Amino acid sequence: MSRVYNFSAGPAVLPEEVLAEAAAEMMDYQGCGMSVMEMSHRSAPFQKIIDEAEEDLRDLLSIPENYKVLFLQGGASQQFSAIPMNFSAPKNGVADYIVTGQWAKKAFQEAGRFITANKIATSEDSTFSYIPDCSDLPISDNADYVYICENNTIYGTKFHTLPNTKGKDLIADQSSCFLSEPVDVSKYGMIYAGAQKNVGPAGVVIAIIREDLVPAEDLPTVPTMLQYKTQVDKKSLYNTPPCYGIYICGKVFKYLKKNGGLAEMKARNEAKAKILYDAIDESDLFSGTVRAQDRSLMNVPFVTGNPDLDAKFVKEAAEAGLVNLKGHRSVGGLRASIYNSMPAEGVQALVDFMRKFELENK
Amino acid sequence: MSRVYNFSAGPAVLPEEVLAEAAAEMMDYQGCGMSVMEMSHRSAPFQKIIDEAEEDLRDLLSIPENYKVLFLQGGASQQFSAIPMNFSAPKNGVADYIVTGQWAKKAFQEAGRFITANKIATSEDSTFSYIPDCSDLPISDNADYVYICENNTIYGTKFHTLPNTKGKDLIADQSSCFLSEPVDVSKYGMIYAGAQKNVGPAGVVIAIIREDLVPAEDLPTVPTMLQYKTQVDKKSLYNTPPCYGIYICGKVFKYLKKNGGLAEMKARNEAKAKILYDAIDESDLFSGTVRAQDRSLMNVPFVTGNPDLDAKFVKEAAEAGLVNLKGHRSVGGLRASIYNSMPAEGVQALVDFMRKFELENK
Repeated sequence: MSRVYNFSAGPAVLPEEVLAEAAAEMMDYQGCGMSVMEMSHRSAPFQKIIDEAEEDLRDLLSIPENYKVLFLQGGASQQFSAIPMNFSAPKNGVADYIVTGQWAKKAFQEAGRFITANKIATSEDSTFSYIPDCSDLPISDNADYVYICENNTIYGTKFHTLPNTKGKDLIADQSSCFLSEPVDVSKYGMIYAGAQKNVGPAGVVIAIIREDLVPAEDLPTVPTMLQYKTQVDKKSLYNTPPCYGIYICGKVFKYLKKNGGLAEMKARNEAKAKILYDAIDESDLFSGTVRAQDRSLMNVPFVTGNPDLDAKFVKEAAEAGLVNLKGHRSVGGLRASIYNSMPAEGVQALVDFMRKFELENK
Repeated sequence: MSRVYNFSAGPAVLPEEVLAEAAAEMMDYQGCGMSVMEMSHRSAPFQKIIDEAEEDLRDLLSIPENYKVLFLQGGASQQFSAIPMNFSAPKNGVADYIVTGQWAKKAFQEAGRFITANKIATSEDSTFSYIPDCSDLPISDNADYVYICENNTIYGTKFHTLPNTKGKDLIADQSSCFLSEPVDVSKYGMIYAGAQKNVGPAGVVIAIIREDLVPAEDLPTVPTMLQYKTQVDKKSLYNTPPCYGIYICGKVFKYLKKNGGLAEMKARNEAKAKILYDAIDESDLFSGTVRAQDRSLMNVPFVTGNPDLDAKFVKEAAEAGLVNLKGHRSVGGLRASIYNSMPAEGVQALVDFMRKFELENK
């Protein structure tokens, strides 16, 4: 077995310890005589897995009691429709979107199928390289919510200050920064995240929803599976959930708790990001693409300014065991995603390689 | 490691060989230096995994070229809404449902949210213990399709003859009989199946759709993720798919090919089912609950007629390593699901245990 340093933006690196445990339990989960993949979702062992996953997540994020935790399917893209269908169409049918990247834009466009979605701020004028000032935006009086993508995986920006929503509920896609640092859940109406960046395998979405926002009645024109009420009423077990993915997420939650929780993750992530951003800032070859104050701790885009040299870097880095450093197909250049599970040694190895590459390509 | 015989209706037993391979590849998939869980869905190794999965499935089922194969999320329950939204609401808004169990009933009820769904036959009068005569049903002149659940997991019935749809397209939920025997795909407009019964882990739905049925244009009021056009256009990679689940399904497809394909599966499944049904029919204690001609090869419900004795059987069988024999919570009694991956030895062990139990409980 030979592991690489995997800088993929998602699906992304997971803790080796978690993978080793999953491998060891593959044929026989804790004496059950079967894999978690083979286990009824109505069985006692699986109920324990999903209950503990929720409990550990609540501990990690100090989730208040009046918030529900759901394990869903369909990725963030499916939430792009579920959110307006549940939280706005049955109310005022109006919501405000802050568009800071491709995923916020897709969420905004999808909402337009079901409600009046207003784009109240954007940084598209500058290839989403910054987070707009959101201290005094023209929030709609009748907005049912304000929507953000809190960390922009492709562009490498993050809201370091939440927008002033002027009393409206904030809904945040935290897919690429989920569990990377402590969060005050009570500031949000809903937080959700695709698991495949910082938490687990693709195929699981975690949603944390303030309970008063969940529609009390069936929404007759909304697919049952897309109604949060369905999933809340049945505690994510309306139908068969993505059991194995939830099991892996649960292991990651336990790993995070054992390793100091989210305060420690934040400290580690800040230290790792500093190593990489410092190297970029000190370099004559590489430069960052994001306004310094808006930089993400998770996704670090950079460029040489020469697409051929970028390609050479990606290729030679991969040969050195540093893989998935190509920027997103929509923007090009380079990008290192350094989620919780990327060890500091991996970031150091990347920085060392960057310095060597710069010397060789002056 | 000690494996049990797992008669769960789903998620259900998988081939040991597949699980062992997955465990061995967990930390380093074929020299990639990472798990399939950590792999970008846009990477070459994952593209190969999903391409081969589709190719092997096409081989197994001899899927004609004018059918698309999709790997989706959300379970069969999500298809219950997607099917009428895609295939009927944009056309005549009428479809005919044959209701032979709980899942067909749920599909029928869900369709009613979006179209006029007609229940043209049902066996609910007799606790779904048989398949109605479908040779000359009152098919609606303007029906956009006729819908069946081909194998009824809970009740243990199967359509051994497909309904006469009088020229309308047939849509079949094959979740619990998928890949259990050869099928003439060209007789269907769409076949779909949740993977977690006969194919892989929960969180993957496989859909096989005749391409002319896929709407050519965007459906403006339908969530993008629920539009088959979205998934067909992007070959199941519109957003991050359930990568690890697809990888396991792909391994099962290869396992089935290596073991003689679906003709061999059918022979094995018939032999296994015969052992169990013969034992039930010969017993003075146990009796089947399904009309003989409609019996499923996959799900075998039976009862002692005494709920306390049923419970004792479930408990003692589990102690003997024969687990998940309790009937579905909606019907009670006993049920053995004997999917492809249940070895003949498991069925024989069950039958031996039944005989012993009968002697001890005369």
